[in-house]
Amino acid sequence: MTKKAVVIYSGGMDSFTVLHRALREGYEVYALSFNYGQRHGKELDCAAKVCAELGVPHRLVDITAINELLQGSSLTSDIDVPEGHYADDNMKQTVVPNRNMILLSLAAGYGISLKADDVFYGAHGGDHDIYPDCRKVFVTAMRNVLMYADWHQIDLKVPFQEGNKQTILEWGFAHGLDYADTWTCYNGREKACGKCGSCIERVESFIAVGKVDPIAYEDDWATVCESVTKTLEAS
Amino acid sequence: MTKKAVVIYSGGMDSFTVLHRALREGYEVYALSFNYGQRHGKELDCAAKVCAELGVPHRLVDITAINELLQGSSLTSDIDVPEGHYADDNMKQTVVPNRNMILLSLAAGYGISLKADDVFYGAHGGDHDIYPDCRKVFVTAMRNVLMYADWHQIDLKVPFQEGNKQTILEWGFAHGLDYADTWTCYNGREKACGKCGSCIERVESFIAVGKVDPIAYEDDWATVCESVTKTLEAS
Repeated sequence: MTKKAVVIYSGGMDSFTVLHRALREGYEVYALSFNYGQRHGKELDCAAKVCAELGVPHRLVDITAINELLQGSSLTSDIDVPEGHYADDNMKQTVVPNRNMILLSLAAGYGISLKADDVFYGAHGGDHDIYPDCRKVFVTAMRNVLMYADWHQIDLKVPFQEGNKQTILEWGFAHGLDYADTWTCYNGREKACGKCGSCIERVESFIAVGKVDPIAYEDDWATVCESVTKTLEAS
Repeated sequence: MTKKAVVIYSGGMDSFTVLHRALREGYEVYALSFNYGQRHGKELDCAAKVCAELGVPHRLVDITAINELLQGSSLTSDIDVPEGHYADDNMKQTVVPNRNMILLSLAAGYGISLKADDVFYGAHGGDHDIYPDCRKVFVTAMRNVLMYADWHQIDLKVPFQEGNKQTILEWGFAHGLDYADTWTCYNGREKACGKCGSCIERVESFIAVGKVDPIAYEDDWATVCESVTKTLEAS
């Protein structure tokens, strides 16, 4: 019998790759996106488009009402998005308190209602320093709690747990993925800014695998790469 | 320094007691209620009234948008509320998939944003048979995950873990609590029905401690007690 999986799919490059990974592993996939008032709503448009093209059922859940609980984060508030690399201290304000535990709990609830076998999510080793809820110890603890949260047990799959964004891209390019319909920039403008922490990380990983990012940036790709390289050297 | 706690407070008798327990233990209390489209919205009215009277900050978070994920439960859907004791199989449909994990994740996120020490919630031993996420093993696993979910660690307090509704009422009456502003009935009518599983459990616990329930039922208290006793004997 085909195994079922819920894939937490933001529309970004990491979860886009994880979505394809679950499909390649033969799962019947149910994609789940959250609108928690993030400014980069373009991610969600990408998610809807990709799921429609793949014929994957896609649920978008509006959880903006919980924003007031998760205050103090520039991801969901009016504070300016800081520019610079994630490793900088000023990027810590982009952390939404307990975000992954909340999203995983909701995804697990959805999975339980579907009698699914697994929940996939795109945490990776490159996020460890900044996001406590991307660490392996957190994933292990969550996997444990999901053995007891319901009579129906559901497991957590984090295929790129040991990797980073570069590993993710390597897997994606090896499997012919096209990253044109993924979105990462924290600023909600027409084109990617190439300067926020999220863009810098993305560009860094494309440089690392020697590929041109297919999405549009406000500057041309060579300029973006040069600027990102300088920022990384200075950090 | 005064310790801070988030108390998950539905407006029902269990969490009403837990709210007072946290206050008695000297915590600076932040009450948190969820509107997840439950039909017994009177619970939330009770919660607001009690917090106003106690001068406790009260946040109500609307999470009805996640209902579509948590389908198949009569608590949030149009299926008729079954009458009878919780121990009956037909009460299992009142279980919202992964509800406690979702609510605890949100409460922990709120607690982290407040730099709170603890999250209190009202799970008790009497719920074990029917709700997997009220079991001690679940609470232990959740406590563990909260050590890693954020750099700020928050603990889970479940003061009536080893007890049941009777134990809760015993503590409440010993501390002078008035249960007039608590609501339990699953049917959203003017007075409590006295017949749904939730009412039966409540009435059973008042009988056990030899007290008259101060809230209004559709029948007089003696008739309600007689009917509940018969239902319990037949189960």
